[in-house]
Amino acid sequence: MKQIFAVFVAFLALCLDVPSLAAPLASVSSPDSRLNLSFDIDHDGRVRYSVIRDGKPLIAPSKMGFLLQDSFAMVRGFGFVGQESASGEENWEQPWGERRFIRGKYNELLVRFQQKEDFQRQMNVRVRVFNDGLGFRYEIPDQPHLKVMKIAEELTEFDIAQPGTAWWITGGEWNRYEQIYQKTRIDAVATAHTPITMKLDDGTHLSFHEAALVDYAAMWFKRADGQTFRSMLSPSSREAKVIRETPFSTPWRTIRVSDDAAGLVESDLELNLNAPNKIGDVSWFKPHKYIGIWWGMITGKWSWASGPNHGATTERAKQYIDFAAKHGFKSVLIEGWNKGWDGNWFGRGYYSFTESYPDFDLKEVTDYARRKGVQIIGHHETGGNIAVYEAQLEDAMKLYAKVGIQAVKTGYVADAGGIIAPGDAEGAMRMEWHDGQRMSVHHLNVVETAAKYKIAINAHEPIKDTGLRRTYPNWIGREGARGMEYNAWGQYANSPDHEPTLIYTRMLSGPMDFTPGVLSLTGSSGVRLASTLAKQLGLYVTLYSPIQMAADYPEELAKYPRELGFIRQVPADWSESHLIAGEVGDYAVFARKDRNSNDWYVGGVNDADPRTISAKLDFLDAGRSYTAKIYRDGLNADYRTDQRHSMAYETRTVKKGDMLNIWMAPAGGFAVRIAAER
Amino acid sequence: MKQIFAVFVAFLALCLDVPSLAAPLASVSSPDSRLNLSFDIDHDGRVRYSVIRDGKPLIAPSKMGFLLQDSFAMVRGFGFVGQESASGEENWEQPWGERRFIRGKYNELLVRFQQKEDFQRQMNVRVRVFNDGLGFRYEIPDQPHLKVMKIAEELTEFDIAQPGTAWWITGGEWNRYEQIYQKTRIDAVATAHTPITMKLDDGTHLSFHEAALVDYAAMWFKRADGQTFRSMLSPSSREAKVIRETPFSTPWRTIRVSDDAAGLVESDLELNLNAPNKIGDVSWFKPHKYIGIWWGMITGKWSWASGPNHGATTERAKQYIDFAAKHGFKSVLIEGWNKGWDGNWFGRGYYSFTESYPDFDLKEVTDYARRKGVQIIGHHETGGNIAVYEAQLEDAMKLYAKVGIQAVKTGYVADAGGIIAPGDAEGAMRMEWHDGQRMSVHHLNVVETAAKYKIAINAHEPIKDTGLRRTYPNWIGREGARGMEYNAWGQYANSPDHEPTLIYTRMLSGPMDFTPGVLSLTGSSGVRLASTLAKQLGLYVTLYSPIQMAADYPEELAKYPRELGFIRQVPADWSESHLIAGEVGDYAVFARKDRNSNDWYVGGVNDADPRTISAKLDFLDAGRSYTAKIYRDGLNADYRTDQRHSMAYETRTVKKGDMLNIWMAPAGGFAVRIAAER
Repeated sequence: MKQIFAVFVAFLALCLDVPSLAAPLASVSSPDSRLNLSFDIDHDGRVRYSVIRDGKPLIAPSKMGFLLQDSFAMVRGFGFVGQESASGEENWEQPWGERRFIRGKYNELLVRFQQKEDFQRQMNVRVRVFNDGLGFRYEIPDQPHLKVMKIAEELTEFDIAQPGTAWWITGGEWNRYEQIYQKTRIDAVATAHTPITMKLDDGTHLSFHEAALVDYAAMWFKRADGQTFRSMLSPSSREAKVIRETPFSTPWRTIRVSDDAAGLVESDLELNLNAPNKIGDVSWFKPHKYIGIWWGMITGKWSWASGPNHGATTERAKQYIDFAAKHGFKSVLIEGWNKGWDGNWFGRGYYSFTESYPDFDLKEVTDYARRKGVQIIGHHETGGNIAVYEAQLEDAMKLYAKVGIQAVKTGYVADAGGIIAPGDAEGAMRMEWHDGQRMSVHHLNVVETAAKYKIAINAHEPIKDTGLRRTYPNWIGREGARGMEYNAWGQYANSPDHEPTLIYTRMLSGPMDFTPGVLSLTGSSGVRLASTLAKQLGLYVTLYSPIQMAADYPEELAKYPRELGFIRQVPADWSESHLIAGEVGDYAVFARKDRNSNDWYVGGVNDADPRTISAKLDFLDAGRSYTAKIYRDGLNADYRTDQRHSMAYETRTVKKGDMLNIWMAPAGGFAVRIAAER
Repeated sequence: MKQIFAVFVAFLALCLDVPSLAAPLASVSSPDSRLNLSFDIDHDGRVRYSVIRDGKPLIAPSKMGFLLQDSFAMVRGFGFVGQESASGEENWEQPWGERRFIRGKYNELLVRFQQKEDFQRQMNVRVRVFNDGLGFRYEIPDQPHLKVMKIAEELTEFDIAQPGTAWWITGGEWNRYEQIYQKTRIDAVATAHTPITMKLDDGTHLSFHEAALVDYAAMWFKRADGQTFRSMLSPSSREAKVIRETPFSTPWRTIRVSDDAAGLVESDLELNLNAPNKIGDVSWFKPHKYIGIWWGMITGKWSWASGPNHGATTERAKQYIDFAAKHGFKSVLIEGWNKGWDGNWFGRGYYSFTESYPDFDLKEVTDYARRKGVQIIGHHETGGNIAVYEAQLEDAMKLYAKVGIQAVKTGYVADAGGIIAPGDAEGAMRMEWHDGQRMSVHHLNVVETAAKYKIAINAHEPIKDTGLRRTYPNWIGREGARGMEYNAWGQYANSPDHEPTLIYTRMLSGPMDFTPGVLSLTGSSGVRLASTLAKQLGLYVTLYSPIQMAADYPEELAKYPRELGFIRQVPADWSESHLIAGEVGDYAVFARKDRNSNDWYVGGVNDADPRTISAKLDFLDAGRSYTAKIYRDGLNADYRTDQRHSMAYETRTVKKGDMLNIWMAPAGGFAVRIAAER
């Protein structure tokens, strides 16, 4: 009878997805007790986690587990083996970043599960709960029947318990992360990359992401039904999406939780879940601003390829170096210096990373730069061909180190699924995804190689940022969203609310080499940016990067001496950063303290709805006097009219507690330098 | 300059997804000219198709192509090589089905494309446009650089040009097709199985599916953004989702288009795109009704496994045979007759397909049945283990043929991704998906083997139906949706609108062994069905299957002699079928003509909103007199109350043109036998 009943219950269970009434087996809360994660096992032996905040369900019971390529799934039939609790505190100093000192108290729980039948596989889950969010990861122990884990799919669910709005970009799109964000109700999302940000109807802000994506495929979100999401791993050319020897840990699946947008934006959750710096001293890297031989090719005036309009010539490089030296830019990016751009490079990438074009003398240019106190940012575009790049990587970095280049912009321009990795036989290819397991390995390979040579990496068309800059602080930035360049190719190609959305989504993951500073507000063929001039300055304070470009042609930059002066002064390194006003997708106002002085900067970017913000300067030091230099939208400024360059300038004495009221135009913004009196 | 410009345009193109202004290269219309499909190639060499109906865009320019696992994608850089046009007409007789004669005029277009660079791959597309819809498929020729095509993903888009509503189930769910349908706006779909049905705001009805899924992975829909959908192939344990030697053709991607629901439901588009019968005479298979030792296990009273409550005993089998003989049921399904049910069979499947349990004598039972003029339906549950099943398949069919069994219900009870296929080494496993390439091959292997032995196949937990019953008319049905059994396990587990939605979605693909006829309206532990008694009869006329079960316990069936009498008479084979009233998700009323007489049957099923339908009996033969016997919901019938069994019975003389007005209760229905006067 018992056997019959067991079979019946098993059969029943397989068919119905009934909410369990099982009591939690193990549970862990944040230090302030507001956030709680608990585990249970349903009637079918499926491990589930749930999250509650302030007593309200945040994540309803959500299943966990894996499909394997070569064996029974790790989904059903689990039993609880044991648990361990701990507490800890992260307390560390970033060598560069939005904040100097980072802290985070947490409570930790490790739970051990084991399947009762068949191969009795073990699956552990470790959780860390902070006051600003939580992360959990799977830890798969070494075990007799799982020496190599071939993951066909990870089946982690996220069943959002309350209705709300989501901001997201489609997972697996041909153009990778370079999409305009969609804003929909949560139950209208399809598949999405992370970070995916949500605002529940009760005001709670959430963002889902991952931390420490090492030797594993990136996680996308796939909505199953209602508000239940499930992980979907980036594909692989191999027979499984992830292949790992045990023991290993997956990346942390992270959930930032906050009462408001500021709490979401100012969290360091993923950084706190990453391993400490393992490459040592990086004082050789100094955050700075740069210009580049780049916009000319983006707007079609010059070419990367050789020919009469070749952008990267020795002569032009010297002109840029002169301009950089004169206007306080620390370095010059030069693209198109190397052989391989002639013919079809996109998704093909038959580059040389050591041979220059004949009209570009690398030694002469870098020597000239050195004499002027300027550096060159190197460029390694791969066209997606990591087989070619990896074969030359060591020599490429060696060459750059030899000529004094200390930062490289890498690129992987190819469609999603179009990365060319070496195959198993001579001449064979494996097609990979920009964010699959193979590329997670490739990027760290590049970063670690660069570190040996004291070179920093700024990766374009990259894998998403999951906080590895803590472990590898020479990984100084990446693209991984639609940046300024899209504005060159189509009128208002980046909508007015693009940056005000990026700040609450993409920018939660880490710095972006957005390349602001197109002060002409014009792309190719007269195409207009969805931006006023003041918004361009606001970007320096709102879209963080340790390397900030002034992207426009130097002669255009020179037409706006006051703005150029602001850009010269604005830091790229901060000791504090605060979102002092803003709403997801609408606008954002930051206050940041210069890491190297007592100065503060305030800046804002706005969507298409004009608005006045009132910011209280309560972050200033008490008793200190400051001079505020304000750069803001002038009367009637509007990105759609001939008043888009209209500016108003003010200088004021300010002190702690003063109010700053600033009107922002449609697609407008502002920037303020609050200089401390010496 | 030209080279620079070309590179610039290529770079521009890779970044922006601009609508093309390219003129159509090739175009084909339906015979009535309302529907038109055209091809163009965008500025980036990407092949696109568009569909227009009555001059309005139906499918906006939608991209085509493939990602390969081991080489450059077949996406960009295509040129137009040539085209061929043709016309044709399908005109054939089904051995069994909803209609006896099937016709379809079409216009056909074959277009040849070739990539200009690299390996210059060739990709052809064939289109057939009928008045009720269209289908297109890729044809990949034998070519020097593509001997074996390893498809990482198919990238066929479906950009729905007008807003509307969609009815769908989630693609890739753990419980496969066995889900309640979701009804959302088109732009809120996430991932979906096919058929996926849409009703545009202007009233146009569409359903997307595929035809002739042979040696290829099933296609799911994945919404990218807005209303753009993209194909997503079911996964594989191998390094690519599909591996095929060239030349080969993909399945047809089909789009039924109609002004109304009836046109959608009555289309034979997918059948017309399948290859003709290749197994020859199937007159040994006669559509019929059956009962079974099955509901007892579903409701938990008996077991499949051995033991004191074993369902499939020789004695019980004889009782069922007696009941079948007495009440006009042609066969008896017997589950749990064979060894392998003891222990964990779900997703494991260590069955013997030739050894019976000791208390079941296969020979004695089949001999008894034969003497009574009744057949036995065999049962091959695999628990998802096709490694075990395929090894015994020949012997299993041989045994059944020997004892006179002419139909088998197969089963694949396992989670999605949990099919166990043989690996490459001894004892190795490959985990496959129910609708992946490996299973598309397995199912035809089973059907073809069965055909040798004159055995028909009714597959549960199957791959979707794509019309292959035309080519293999012994493939008589399948499950592939949530059937009656779910009602056994939870109150109203199948919602009142479940069948009224199935009819316009799942049922467009082919017959379903839904197993109606739970006349007690009760499952295990007194759980209620979302159905009145009249609705159970309506199912026999609205949810088509060539084998129709009366699923309840015989003693329960016997309590409703009038209803049992209707079931005895209702045919399972039709010469005509018409949806004479209905709305997707709400209700459906069919009129069907018995294939073997001049009788007609009318039946309806309803959701939770009571309604009166008015049906004009204009399908009756002029000049012929009929007696209509009506079985309908009685006064106050309601699935939620103690009036759920309330029936009203009427007998009436009717003729062509008469009106039939029938009120349907909440979750109600009706059935009418319109017997022609002899």
